[in-house]
Amino acid sequence: MMRNDAFAEVMAMARQTAALEQVAGRLGWDQETTMPRGAAEQRGEEMAAMEGVLHARRTDPRLADLLEAAAAPDAAGARQLRLARAHRRACKVPAALAQEIARVTSLAQGIWAEARAAEDVVGFLPTLAEVIALKRQEGAVLAQGGDPYDALVDDYEPAMTGAEIAAMFGAMRPRLVSLRERVLGSDRRPAALSGSFSADSQLRLARDLATAFGYDWTRGRLDIAVHPFSSGSANDVRITTRIAEADPFNCFYSTIHEVGHAAYEQGIDPDYALTPIGQGVSMGVHESQSRIYENQLGRSRAFTGWLFGQMRERFGEFGIGSADEFFATVNRVQPGFIRTEADEVHYNLHIMMRFDLERALMQGSLEVGDLEAAWNDRFKADFGVTVDRPSNGILQDVHWSVGLFGYFPTYSLGNLYAGCLHQALRADQPGLDDDLARGDLAAATGWLREKVQRHGGLYAPREVIARAIGGAPGEAPLLGYLEAKFAEIYGL
Amino acid sequence: MMRNDAFAEVMAMARQTAALEQVAGRLGWDQETTMPRGAAEQRGEEMAAMEGVLHARRTDPRLADLLEAAAAPDAAGARQLRLARAHRRACKVPAALAQEIARVTSLAQGIWAEARAAEDVVGFLPTLAEVIALKRQEGAVLAQGGDPYDALVDDYEPAMTGAEIAAMFGAMRPRLVSLRERVLGSDRRPAALSGSFSADSQLRLARDLATAFGYDWTRGRLDIAVHPFSSGSANDVRITTRIAEADPFNCFYSTIHEVGHAAYEQGIDPDYALTPIGQGVSMGVHESQSRIYENQLGRSRAFTGWLFGQMRERFGEFGIGSADEFFATVNRVQPGFIRTEADEVHYNLHIMMRFDLERALMQGSLEVGDLEAAWNDRFKADFGVTVDRPSNGILQDVHWSVGLFGYFPTYSLGNLYAGCLHQALRADQPGLDDDLARGDLAAATGWLREKVQRHGGLYAPREVIARAIGGAPGEAPLLGYLEAKFAEIYGL
Repeated sequence: MMRNDAFAEVMAMARQTAALEQVAGRLGWDQETTMPRGAAEQRGEEMAAMEGVLHARRTDPRLADLLEAAAAPDAAGARQLRLARAHRRACKVPAALAQEIARVTSLAQGIWAEARAAEDVVGFLPTLAEVIALKRQEGAVLAQGGDPYDALVDDYEPAMTGAEIAAMFGAMRPRLVSLRERVLGSDRRPAALSGSFSADSQLRLARDLATAFGYDWTRGRLDIAVHPFSSGSANDVRITTRIAEADPFNCFYSTIHEVGHAAYEQGIDPDYALTPIGQGVSMGVHESQSRIYENQLGRSRAFTGWLFGQMRERFGEFGIGSADEFFATVNRVQPGFIRTEADEVHYNLHIMMRFDLERALMQGSLEVGDLEAAWNDRFKADFGVTVDRPSNGILQDVHWSVGLFGYFPTYSLGNLYAGCLHQALRADQPGLDDDLARGDLAAATGWLREKVQRHGGLYAPREVIARAIGGAPGEAPLLGYLEAKFAEIYGL
Repeated sequence: MMRNDAFAEVMAMARQTAALEQVAGRLGWDQETTMPRGAAEQRGEEMAAMEGVLHARRTDPRLADLLEAAAAPDAAGARQLRLARAHRRACKVPAALAQEIARVTSLAQGIWAEARAAEDVVGFLPTLAEVIALKRQEGAVLAQGGDPYDALVDDYEPAMTGAEIAAMFGAMRPRLVSLRERVLGSDRRPAALSGSFSADSQLRLARDLATAFGYDWTRGRLDIAVHPFSSGSANDVRITTRIAEADPFNCFYSTIHEVGHAAYEQGIDPDYALTPIGQGVSMGVHESQSRIYENQLGRSRAFTGWLFGQMRERFGEFGIGSADEFFATVNRVQPGFIRTEADEVHYNLHIMMRFDLERALMQGSLEVGDLEAAWNDRFKADFGVTVDRPSNGILQDVHWSVGLFGYFPTYSLGNLYAGCLHQALRADQPGLDDDLARGDLAAATGWLREKVQRHGGLYAPREVIARAIGGAPGEAPLLGYLEAKFAEIYGL
């Protein structure tokens, strides 16, 4: 076979697999938004059948031969092959181990949910120990002599290592702990919103926010779900939000966050659709888009000024007298146990803690029996508070129960990349705040699309950020941004 | 391999295939209800990829070996194998021919839509000729020396032949033509509804109607679509309806019709879910359920009396003074060119015409160049009216453009079976009208569930009807029902 024929065939197979992945992903969307509740068990069978189909395609020996034979016609083609080969390597876990992980984690999720409800760490630990043992095995198989945790991280953030993450996080931690202490020591106390905000009006404003941030409604839709998420690639990228009548920021910033994810997928060069490079390149780069939309842009002084006007127009009085006060309210820093409710100052401290703990678990330097104590000690050290119950501590996240080790750090990597991109964006666009103050995101999102989103998987994660910012990404811009922003709000 | 092991493996493979069929079917539901319009092209690729997966599974040589080796443990198992083998036979069309049919019909649908909009028969005929030639080939391959049209019918109505259908339809036609003439010659003219009926109120009543007819909302949902349909099996069976503010019957009777289809799928023995016998056994039996719900029950004097009260309560005055008058309005007979808008008297005449024409096309006794004249002559003969334009004649239905030959007669078979079931139901339940007059469908739908629905594909189409009614199904009950009903309404 000609090497170019092999390339064409690899791409044709990849295209069908990508189409089937979209179908499987939409089953997940349907489950969270529209599925009748009595269909849950049947849906499990449907998803398992789709997984079976996808696994067979990914491990098809014919694909291995073609990948061996294929030659790329150009640089983009080379990257396509590189990613296709990487996808295949990710399937190198022996079938028996993969099935055992699937079986145990599917049970573990239910056991975790029960344990969390019952505040029962002891009831969960044997299951967690099983998951950890299996994920260690998986990491060892994939690492082939290397670091098992790095091999797991590679699934979510290709070519990033635990040591590199540890270096950046290590530089961030003391400065964030210090910032946190100064903020909480300040005598400024931004007010909370008061009143009730009708679901209909929230949803209307959420839709307007999505439009303002460039969400393409002809290729997507917004629905309500328990946990907001974005789903799909290319021309069918759907987002969800949630509504709490007392807390409209929950709806608005969830929406903006998911629009960031969706804009990445919608913004990829259409020529890459349904190919290996036709998706966001890593969880970290994905999160950089959702975070810069949500935080650096959406929670900026300029943009919150515009949002304040919108909310006053639509909701009347809600206990906040000025745009300045509103900016502080949106960015209120509050101590708390729960990662998903954390503000910009606390969020990365939650992540760093989980990163250190899960890395130690995978490397074998921490055993599951010591995990709760390690969690609680670290929490006291970084947050100054004693964990009061397991659901506020070790049992709060679903991730470990379902085998997601190596995933947590990508949240903070996303923040870190968002910090870098924000710095470069400001340098390129001196008029940014004037735009934001008018609720005009077009230039900012256009810049992100041009610099990051359109490339999809064309460049490796760090490379796409480096190209966008003209240098190596690091933690300094994020730290500078956070320190300046919260110094201003809290008069530090 | 043990013959029982082979049976178990056939069933396991069938189960996964059935789950994947549900996934593919739900893509269709999504496309008609929720898909963003910009996703259409991508959706085509996703559906094609799913079709590829399903085709590979159905034609898997390993399945052929297993089917050869398998022995059924019991009668239900024997039926499972019989249907699994039949599904496999249906895939006997050579891949090249199947692909060519898929290619041509996918183009033909667009060409048909344009031709219909432009009233351009000549522009459509070459394409239709291509489709017909391909379907003749397919029929010939499947028939293996037998009648090609019978082979195509078998896809939708297993074990039914064109000759048997022709015999029943032949007995129906003159009596329906005569009934039609007498009705239209009557001086009674039931009034039409007047006024406007808000979409919200229509949808609320449609939901109440679905509930009354036994639709299980925990395993389904109701959405809006351009063309109402029912979709899915077992525990995820969704229905759609449409709303026209001037014509609430459109919404109500579409809903009841689709609930009939859905009740069949929801009513099948749960043990059969995701197996070959876990679906409605044929299009004709399926249509018998939708039609008896919609017509024999939903358009009965007793039930329309209840519906009249509901509508008066919810919509106030709408120009109909009494339940008697309302019954006549619901069942108004009106001449018209369009099949989908036809009343109970005209509907089967539309179908019989299409059946005779398509059978002649497949058998080669009618050529596509003569089709329009044949259509128009027949229409004049049976309906007494000259077709005024192609969109009211030969171009009105999508079916032939997408290759659906052998499908039309199942609509009238459904009506015919519904007539048989209705007669038997009345014999078993002397209190039926009292129930219907209270809007209480429980006993009637319970009877249908017990006699027909729960069996799924356990018995052949005619057998399940014969068991339900205690004899061979025929056209007499339907004719008797129609003649009596319309004689009463029109004072014949």
